[in-house]
Amino acid sequence: MKSLDYKFDFRDERNLSLVMDFYELTMSQCYFNSEARERIVTFDLFYRKNPDNGGYAVFAGLEEIIGYIQNLHFEDEDIAYLRSLHKFSDAFLDYLRHFIFTGDIYAIKEGTPVFPYEPLIRVRAKIIEAQLLETAMLLCVNHQTLIATKARRIVKAAKGRAIMEFGARRAHNFDAANYGARAAYIGGVAGTATTYAGQKFGMPVLGTMAHSFVQSFDNEYDAFLAYAKTYPDSCTVLLDTYDTLKSGLPNAIRVAKEYLEPNGYRMQGVRIDSGDMAYLSKKIRKALDAAGMEDCNIVVSNSLDEYLIQSLISQGAQINSMGVGENLVCSKSTPVFGGVYKMSAVYEDEKMIPKIKVSENVEKVTNPAFKDLYRIYDKETMKAIGDIMTVHGEVLDPNQDLTIYHQMNSWKNKTIPAGTYIIKDLLEPIFINGELVYDVPELSAIRDYSEAEFSHMWDEILRFEYPQTYYVDLSKKLLDLKLKMLEDVKHVNANK
Amino acid sequence: MKSLDYKFDFRDERNLSLVMDFYELTMSQCYFNSEARERIVTFDLFYRKNPDNGGYAVFAGLEEIIGYIQNLHFEDEDIAYLRSLHKFSDAFLDYLRHFIFTGDIYAIKEGTPVFPYEPLIRVRAKIIEAQLLETAMLLCVNHQTLIATKARRIVKAAKGRAIMEFGARRAHNFDAANYGARAAYIGGVAGTATTYAGQKFGMPVLGTMAHSFVQSFDNEYDAFLAYAKTYPDSCTVLLDTYDTLKSGLPNAIRVAKEYLEPNGYRMQGVRIDSGDMAYLSKKIRKALDAAGMEDCNIVVSNSLDEYLIQSLISQGAQINSMGVGENLVCSKSTPVFGGVYKMSAVYEDEKMIPKIKVSENVEKVTNPAFKDLYRIYDKETMKAIGDIMTVHGEVLDPNQDLTIYHQMNSWKNKTIPAGTYIIKDLLEPIFINGELVYDVPELSAIRDYSEAEFSHMWDEILRFEYPQTYYVDLSKKLLDLKLKMLEDVKHVNANK
Repeated sequence: MKSLDYKFDFRDERNLSLVMDFYELTMSQCYFNSEARERIVTFDLFYRKNPDNGGYAVFAGLEEIIGYIQNLHFEDEDIAYLRSLHKFSDAFLDYLRHFIFTGDIYAIKEGTPVFPYEPLIRVRAKIIEAQLLETAMLLCVNHQTLIATKARRIVKAAKGRAIMEFGARRAHNFDAANYGARAAYIGGVAGTATTYAGQKFGMPVLGTMAHSFVQSFDNEYDAFLAYAKTYPDSCTVLLDTYDTLKSGLPNAIRVAKEYLEPNGYRMQGVRIDSGDMAYLSKKIRKALDAAGMEDCNIVVSNSLDEYLIQSLISQGAQINSMGVGENLVCSKSTPVFGGVYKMSAVYEDEKMIPKIKVSENVEKVTNPAFKDLYRIYDKETMKAIGDIMTVHGEVLDPNQDLTIYHQMNSWKNKTIPAGTYIIKDLLEPIFINGELVYDVPELSAIRDYSEAEFSHMWDEILRFEYPQTYYVDLSKKLLDLKLKMLEDVKHVNANK
Repeated sequence: MKSLDYKFDFRDERNLSLVMDFYELTMSQCYFNSEARERIVTFDLFYRKNPDNGGYAVFAGLEEIIGYIQNLHFEDEDIAYLRSLHKFSDAFLDYLRHFIFTGDIYAIKEGTPVFPYEPLIRVRAKIIEAQLLETAMLLCVNHQTLIATKARRIVKAAKGRAIMEFGARRAHNFDAANYGARAAYIGGVAGTATTYAGQKFGMPVLGTMAHSFVQSFDNEYDAFLAYAKTYPDSCTVLLDTYDTLKSGLPNAIRVAKEYLEPNGYRMQGVRIDSGDMAYLSKKIRKALDAAGMEDCNIVVSNSLDEYLIQSLISQGAQINSMGVGENLVCSKSTPVFGGVYKMSAVYEDEKMIPKIKVSENVEKVTNPAFKDLYRIYDKETMKAIGDIMTVHGEVLDPNQDLTIYHQMNSWKNKTIPAGTYIIKDLLEPIFINGELVYDVPELSAIRDYSEAEFSHMWDEILRFEYPQTYYVDLSKKLLDLKLKMLEDVKHVNANK
């Protein structure tokens, strides 16, 4: 379980620059050909719905985005490929050849509890630069936030019992196994079975044996004994290859008594991977205790998710730790995190022209303008009251009453009395003028920070069933702007 | 839509060797320390249940596995990392440092329709070598087979209309976007929006514009015009930024009439990404036809899956092609393909000792022995009758009656008369004694092969609702062996 110090390597060995939707390039060439070429725009990356009908998400994926942006460039082979498509001019390809990102990126810190509609990432850049980042930023956030959120739910259900991420074999390819393990760690798991993730991210790695290991020996006892001899101080054996209670358990106890204990060691754990885990774990606990093996852990690992874990614990199952596979690493119950990237403003000279995307679906209407985002905490309880989006530049004064407004309806508002609250700016500068200004935290620090931030959330937000909706509200100025723009759009369309 | 010739690069730029469950390494050290070290074993990679309650899967992922195995090695930094965990001996680490795969691998060809319980990959190797491949092989197959299968379903629903894979932003990280696009191509999609996949795999790439493109111009007409000027011969515009019928459609027609047609071009297509696609597409078709734009395609792309596509077509929607995102690239409805890797035999000297994994769940009992796998076709119709697993070495003679047996019940059998059938060996040699002997096909050839193989399947197997179960049966010899082993296991357990 020991791990190396983690040193973040910003650059992937691969050149992933072209992992972008082709339309990012076709649009960019249009911008390149137009007067809009140097225009500054702003985009928000946000999402609309929490996974699993939950009350929150855990933001993750930023570090991978930083690596992508730092590495974003077009090599000769990329240019040659694009040229072969006969869609791009020499001038545009030459522009790409020398492309570097020169804009500003602000983002919420990884591990932060986040909520629908708030900007997780805010980009302010020349239009082509803002556009070319879209696909990769969404992909990293959508994947890692999904898994971190699922992990947080599973860890919460386990009530202090360690969760190990065991899902690599079911992950959606290599990156999903590795970055999925990373995201799960942010969400609170104790470690992973994926060795590469241990190496790359400094996470604890763990693993013992498979059924095939037991099968490959002449009998189960020999298999357990061979394992005990190689790992006397960390011996965990798998009980259910033949028969958990009749064969696996007595053989485990026999190896403890006949080999480990006489040599000064203890059996560290037993694992069950099939059968009724409530029933079996209680039987096993009783037998281990009767054999004087009170310190031997029971590990279970069969299709667990947050609901099954909750149920097992409520049945009094005797479980010390759990391995979770596909339900975590694929977030099987909700396998898609629907982050989107929408334009919020265009600059003309120095003037910010807010933009809005209208839709017949109210929930698809965007929040216009270059915005700021703050979290409001109750001064006394230090619990988060809600988040507020403002038009960039608005000043919030904690010595004044603060009224926050529903995203669509001005009559739905709430006033927080002066002096009772604390304000935190959620958007951290990451890149300024293309330069990385953010001190990327170590993964373990992100995990600790996340744990601490969740302690500021009311339990009602965190529960699985019908969680309370966390306030993500607007300032009066932003709501007025939004409602006026919606009116204007209606008016303009009517005149088309 | 032009693409480069595809040249398969076996080696990933990354060293992914350690993307393996940690227990592969802990078990391996035990084997290394035991007499079993040089023992030859066989494993089968198979799955138990078709995605989406369907009748089949499309095997994919082999090429990526070949790359992994060819590249499987432990570099100094890997050894240093493993050493830092204080679990591995110098002797074992030295063994890893010089590790190369020297075993045999047989596999079904990518693109083949496959069915539960049959070996997709068959490994025969020294026990450590067979073990160390497990995680990566499962991960590649589980991901790509899942996506290829979903693609095939979606393509079938579209009845000849082109499907574009559009999902990178929702994929589970970079590899999932790239290899997901590849797998979707095997499953029959026409191309992808992911530029990198186009470059790496030689797939057609396509893409036009986002809503933000339209928003970034002063008005929709200017946006369409700018696009038409840059891409006069491939102009497809997005209609639904403001109002599909009242604004997008008339602006598209206006650009066609005022700019494209006077300059000798035609509007290639219009795309809708929201709203009622049956209603809107019919209205749009009528208006385009009335404007003399019968050759202008209608492209739709809003949360499509196989069922929605089927429904749209049955409603007479006027759709020429479709972009499919998260429902394809994440296989949202069934996001996990449950491939497993089970030991089937151990060799003692030259003698094959079959192994079986028993379970209280009948469906989790494995098929023992080093096995062969054949597909039986009706000579007259050339439709596949079923697949049969045999103990390796059994000879099937098409001039004799062939009786195939249910995997558990000898009374469930079926006899195919002599002379009426053709036999195909499904397992191709990929590595022999560690050497690649397989001529890896080009991706487009895999796609063509898959299409052709599916033409040999009865429609009843391919339908979405309650598909007929395809026969995956056993030879008499294999069934007898299996039933005897199950009896023996019961007996042995009873005596423990």
